[in-house]
Amino acid sequence: MPIPPRVLKRRELARTRLFRVEELWLRFANGAERVYERLCEPLHGAVLVVPLLDDRTLVLVREYGAGLDQYALGFPKGAVAAGEERLAAAERELREETGFGARRLEFLKTLSLSPAYMGHRIDVVVAWELFEAPLPGDEPEPPEVVTWPLARAAELLAREDFSEGRSVAALYLVQDWLAGRFRR
Amino acid sequence: MPIPPRVLKRRELARTRLFRVEELWLRFANGAERVYERLCEPLHGAVLVVPLLDDRTLVLVREYGAGLDQYALGFPKGAVAAGEERLAAAERELREETGFGARRLEFLKTLSLSPAYMGHRIDVVVAWELFEAPLPGDEPEPPEVVTWPLARAAELLAREDFSEGRSVAALYLVQDWLAGRFRR
Repeated sequence: MPIPPRVLKRRELARTRLFRVEELWLRFANGAERVYERLCEPLHGAVLVVPLLDDRTLVLVREYGAGLDQYALGFPKGAVAAGEERLAAAERELREETGFGARRLEFLKTLSLSPAYMGHRIDVVVAWELFEAPLPGDEPEPPEVVTWPLARAAELLAREDFSEGRSVAALYLVQDWLAGRFRR
Repeated sequence: MPIPPRVLKRRELARTRLFRVEELWLRFANGAERVYERLCEPLHGAVLVVPLLDDRTLVLVREYGAGLDQYALGFPKGAVAAGEERLAAAERELREETGFGARRLEFLKTLSLSPAYMGHRIDVVVAWELFEAPLPGDEPEPPEVVTWPLARAAELLAREDFSEGRSVAALYLVQDWLAGRFRR
């Protein structure tokens, strides 16, 4: 592996309620120096849950996304709270957003958002053996729960409102996992 | 489809060289009001290129990612310039990052980054019939070009340094495309 650049200096450029931007002075192994900006990650990580109603059926949520100013289909996800375990956070988000609890949860893979510019990582978790166990969320309107047969995965992938890179990746990862093709 | 909330007011909260954060006052169809933050997208969009050396071999780049402060494997990508066509931008990024031009390029799907918080979208393009055609890039050190057999895709997916959600999604999309399973 190559030698990572040395961080000569860093400073905070901007901070809002949700976002923090940092400036980094870097010296690369070959002597080149650059000033880069990065968006810092949330403190305790995040989880994305792929809920399986059964072996052949996904649970999706349709929610307003302020980033795109559109309603989007995707998987439940959210930030991990301080001291919260990853699978506990996954089940909490699942209950808040879909009303389902899960008897079985398994971590699959950590995905990053944009390695060059952002520190964000999210843990993809598959959840199955679901049961009714709603928890109140803080959404302005309850997310619409949409069940989707895995046999129609290609149709889901072709939809413009199923566009989030991490949800697309997670859908494929879970299909590999179900088919026994998933590797760690 | 549900009725999107009305944007009552918006204002810029922070602006740096790379990032712009906006605050939105929203009124949802049910009357609920919320103040949201979003990260605005780059002006002219972005492209991610999956280069195929042949039907069985991917081209990847290994680059330092300041967001994660780690070297990461992924596909070439970058911002589209003003007035630049999407496939032209894809080939330019490919030449700058890998030294290959492509006789054939095809758009597959637009991926979003984080619909709830970010406006960013990237167009996934597959490139094939490659030939040597390097263009100078602005990287502090030239990206390392790594060829990877598609037969070992599961091994790539299991690597911690191949983590970017959009690259993972693009790898699967191109495999579907190669297998004739890809749908628009």
